[in-house]
Amino acid sequence: MALTSEQQQEIAAARAAESRTHRPTVPALEAMLFEAIPVLDHGFVRVIDYMGDDGAVVQAARVSYGRGTRKANEDAGLIRYLMRHRHSTPFEMCEIKYHVKLPIFVARQWIRHRTANVNEYSARYSVLDREFYLPAPEHLAAQSTINRQGRGEVLEGDQAARVLDLLREDATRSYDHYLDMLNEDEDGAARDPSRPGLARELARMNLTLNTYTQWYWKIDLHNLLHFLSLRADAHAQYEIRAYAEAMLRTVEAWVPVSFAAFRDYRMGAALLSAQMLAVLRRMLAGESVGQPDSGLSKREWSEFMAVLGR
Amino acid sequence: MALTSEQQQEIAAARAAESRTHRPTVPALEAMLFEAIPVLDHGFVRVIDYMGDDGAVVQAARVSYGRGTRKANEDAGLIRYLMRHRHSTPFEMCEIKYHVKLPIFVARQWIRHRTANVNEYSARYSVLDREFYLPAPEHLAAQSTINRQGRGEVLEGDQAARVLDLLREDATRSYDHYLDMLNEDEDGAARDPSRPGLARELARMNLTLNTYTQWYWKIDLHNLLHFLSLRADAHAQYEIRAYAEAMLRTVEAWVPVSFAAFRDYRMGAALLSAQMLAVLRRMLAGESVGQPDSGLSKREWSEFMAVLGR
Amino acid sequence: MALTSEQQQEIAAARAAESRTHRPTVPALEAMLFEAIPVLDHGFVRVIDYMGDDGAVVQAARVSYGRGTRKANEDAGLIRYLMRHRHSTPFEMCEIKYHVKLPIFVARQWIRHRTANVNEYSARYSVLDREFYLPAPEHLAAQSTINRQGRGEVLEGDQAARVLDLLREDATRSYDHYLDMLNEDEDGAARDPSRPGLARELARMNLTLNTYTQWYWKIDLHNLLHFLSLRADAHAQYEIRAYAEAMLRTVEAWVPVSFAAFRDYRMGAALLSAQMLAVLRRMLAGESVGQPDSGLSKREWSEFMAVLGR
Amino acid sequence: MALTSEQQQEIAAARAAESRTHRPTVPALEAMLFEAIPVLDHGFVRVIDYMGDDGAVVQAARVSYGRGTRKANEDAGLIRYLMRHRHSTPFEMCEIKYHVKLPIFVARQWIRHRTANVNEYSARYSVLDREFYLPAPEHLAAQSTINRQGRGEVLEGDQAARVLDLLREDATRSYDHYLDMLNEDEDGAARDPSRPGLARELARMNLTLNTYTQWYWKIDLHNLLHFLSLRADAHAQYEIRAYAEAMLRTVEAWVPVSFAAFRDYRMGAALLSAQMLAVLRRMLAGESVGQPDSGLSKREWSEFMAVLGR
Repeated sequence: MALTSEQQQEIAAARAAESRTHRPTVPALEAMLFEAIPVLDHGFVRVIDYMGDDGAVVQAARVSYGRGTRKANEDAGLIRYLMRHRHSTPFEMCEIKYHVKLPIFVARQWIRHRTANVNEYSARYSVLDREFYLPAPEHLAAQSTINRQGRGEVLEGDQAARVLDLLREDATRSYDHYLDMLNEDEDGAARDPSRPGLARELARMNLTLNTYTQWYWKIDLHNLLHFLSLRADAHAQYEIRAYAEAMLRTVEAWVPVSFAAFRDYRMGAALLSAQMLAVLRRMLAGESVGQPDSGLSKREWSEFMAVLGR
Repeated sequence: MALTSEQQQEIAAARAAESRTHRPTVPALEAMLFEAIPVLDHGFVRVIDYMGDDGAVVQAARVSYGRGTRKANEDAGLIRYLMRHRHSTPFEMCEIKYHVKLPIFVARQWIRHRTANVNEYSARYSVLDREFYLPAPEHLAAQSTINRQGRGEVLEGDQAARVLDLLREDATRSYDHYLDMLNEDEDGAARDPSRPGLARELARMNLTLNTYTQWYWKIDLHNLLHFLSLRADAHAQYEIRAYAEAMLRTVEAWVPVSFAAFRDYRMGAALLSAQMLAVLRRMLAGESVGQPDSGLSKREWSEFMAVLGR
Repeated sequence: MALTSEQQQEIAAARAAESRTHRPTVPALEAMLFEAIPVLDHGFVRVIDYMGDDGAVVQAARVSYGRGTRKANEDAGLIRYLMRHRHSTPFEMCEIKYHVKLPIFVARQWIRHRTANVNEYSARYSVLDREFYLPAPEHLAAQSTINRQGRGEVLEGDQAARVLDLLREDATRSYDHYLDMLNEDEDGAARDPSRPGLARELARMNLTLNTYTQWYWKIDLHNLLHFLSLRADAHAQYEIRAYAEAMLRTVEAWVPVSFAAFRDYRMGAALLSAQMLAVLRRMLAGESVGQPDSGLSKREWSEFMAVLGR
Repeated sequence: MALTSEQQQEIAAARAAESRTHRPTVPALEAMLFEAIPVLDHGFVRVIDYMGDDGAVVQAARVSYGRGTRKANEDAGLIRYLMRHRHSTPFEMCEIKYHVKLPIFVARQWIRHRTANVNEYSARYSVLDREFYLPAPEHLAAQSTINRQGRGEVLEGDQAARVLDLLREDATRSYDHYLDMLNEDEDGAARDPSRPGLARELARMNLTLNTYTQWYWKIDLHNLLHFLSLRADAHAQYEIRAYAEAMLRTVEAWVPVSFAAFRDYRMGAALLSAQMLAVLRRMLAGESVGQPDSGLSKREWSEFMAVLGR
């Protein structure tokens, strides 16, 4: 990530400004506000604004006139109860806004989550920066041979070098030609005044999918936790998981009690099917059960064993 | 509206608390924060929290690193452009949360707007207050004879008195029997320990639809303006319009530039159909056009004349 | 449930009509189409239309050009995989539309589910029927003493009779006065031509919350299953659960493979928290664990024991 | 657009299948069902399924037991009234499902419409086809000099040839290297068994944004009309407008009465601001008004004159 000095100044100016407010305020999140948390090679996540805190969850659940908080342990108990029993609406009463810089192929996965507000940098209107994602060596993985949508071993030596060369060269060349067709420089200055540039809305189609874009993304806490439970999961593609993990840290600073409940009842929890529960009861009764007589498929059995830590 | 002294103290305590924040802050809205704006006979609207301001609309539209604001007139011009051309996503970047006390029949209209977050006071869990809506004399209207879903003349004298008596007596009796079935007092204290009370989730069905309920309601600015354009409209039922009008004042304090654009391009604007536009062109060319040769139905013609101020 | 003969004729006429279509068609659901399934004392659920079948889930998951189906067991395996791993979007590709008659207090719980399309019968525009819900004796329950939002013992004898009398009398009187204020009969005929009737949009506020309303309700399969998992659950209020159970039968007829997966991986499944999983591993390792040394609260422990069938 | 013979057979098989149904059926849309309507150079739109018809809009608005239709002109009048007064919920009662093949940069605009259900072909799981969009000569436009997000003159001669060469070469090379890194052929067959292929989820990032993708896209009629009003508009980028125009023809076949109302009250209509209406009244009163004394900005004045056909 390389912010320009102009961008750094804008961020510093925003951090310097301070106001008085009657609204609930979270010092731990204020300390992070506007700062870019680096993700991947050129990306970042920045918290831009937020509304509410753990107390706002409690307040909405109780529909109270004031802050509605009681003793800290009663409030935490209520939040844990709400999370455990999937009472999701009180968590919708907190809202957070991020500024994210991310490769386009990651943006395409991310945007599937429809319950958020989004404003993306417009390549119809402006020229995109010369920035594209190249995986770090340890993330340059071969296709998995057992999971059609997963990764296998890390590529080594020549194999890895060749892939990185292709990715770099193709992205670079496509970007060079993008500017060429636009007849503009990266800063938007015209190049050759004797010929017209291609419309920006057309020229952008020449860019590769690892080009970085950026957006403002705003979401309520309930839907954010749902997003994070899917995208911070081990099955998520590494590149989006890297963003989810950075965001988890902002959520922990923002709403620590809700975050702990989320960790216990979502991230660290497991859903056992009716058949798995039946097997479990047989096991607890002392019966020795194997996959063949479990009623579970081999795949389910192996998922089940993983949950049981066997 | 009669807040209990306990409720007033909770509000005063919330207003007394103050923090320092790096977030955008709107002094005019801070001045209103938590205060109950009275609506109808026992209802209110209170702003509980907010995120963003006019600058946040500009910032998202420009996807900028800092506040993204330029000269005030450039920012206002951008906001007006966005509103005029229905670029709605930047307005979704502001969020507001209200606490509302309202009659159940109004709540049932209101909840049709699905793009909001809601936590309603639970009558499965708690006992509702003895408060029900009785229209003021000037709002006690007869059925319209020309509009199946509208109001006509105001009822007078005995007619009005009889209606108010029926509404008051039925609501009172239903509420008395509600407590009787619950075997509880309004404050939740048990009455007759020798008999069980009916389950709250059942007893509530005896209440009339003018009983007051309350909820926390959170929404983004774009969807709020859409709600207000429908519910502050002259065709909306008076009782929900009264809430919309109170909320318009909070929006004006919060985002004055967006509000002015909304007034010019939504509230005060009119949509002319293809046929109306064709008639208009004939009129401006000097032709005298009447309904019979306009191609408009009588109803459309009368709507058209109203728009033209004729 | 008492349909008028006119309503029965409308339903019979709809059932008699038949067309040829290239669309996926489900004979088992066609056999139910338009028929009213009775729920509670005057309510019903009717399937009005549907789009897609189990094959449409498979087709969307494979983004195929034709029906996309392979061998039946491969398709079922895919559907079960999608359900188990919460790949929800293929289930959104099926849609169903219901016509429901239900008490207003049930409608108020139901409408919280925002991801559906709704058209409700308008009491601003029309006169509601004289129909209100009175619980059957076995559902007339006392307030639970251990769960603030649950039911306890069934009321007996005089207690029950008194409650039913109050519910019946208050609903009847409120409805009588509703017609009186409207100055209309149930069929909309004017009563006393010498006086104006109160506006319908006002008169309706005198009705009690057990009055029946009706609506068209349309939803995709994924969101329907989410609705049913919450509302067919033992913790849901009986009156809405009765509707959910009737709807489960329509889903089983419509998409039997998806329904079986839903039953195995949702309805019959259980979510175990991180702490519960840790306890489980100790138990399976032969350790005897009790609530005090489990790290679970008493309430969680009792939920955990219920899941394990102990 | 070039469908493989296998794809054509799948489509023919789907068209050959026919069932009997009690559901509303639209012969004009049945005639189009499954057929690919070509869009751009390799794209298409296909209607895959639908629910409801013009009668379903009327039925929901009336909440009727049967088809709810009366005389054809009464039904049309109701539909036009609903459209004119923005009663959107009855139009949500119809649903349609498309299969679309489209360039990724178009997909990225399209997906901003969040009120639809989507299943996209997964390049994590499968290999994308060698198909990318190259504009036809008449659509190869220069950047507009007056509108930052619009097009100007069409490029001619060498300029055009050079742009097309760059687009073709970069897309081709990037695709070649994509297969190379995958170590797979287009049909998924492995190439060199002695080396591992890069994970599909990584290799895809090398593709250019004009590569074609495909998805199933399902939406209700109200939200479809909103999408079309924005994307068939003259301000939309040509490439997405081409899809919107193809879809307009399917809507006209499906719900001809709703479509006519949409054309009159949306597509052909204009929204006049409060200031424009004030100017209009002065004009109709015989006053000659110019931009300087209109209170409108130059840009608004020019938009206003365009609406008035001047």
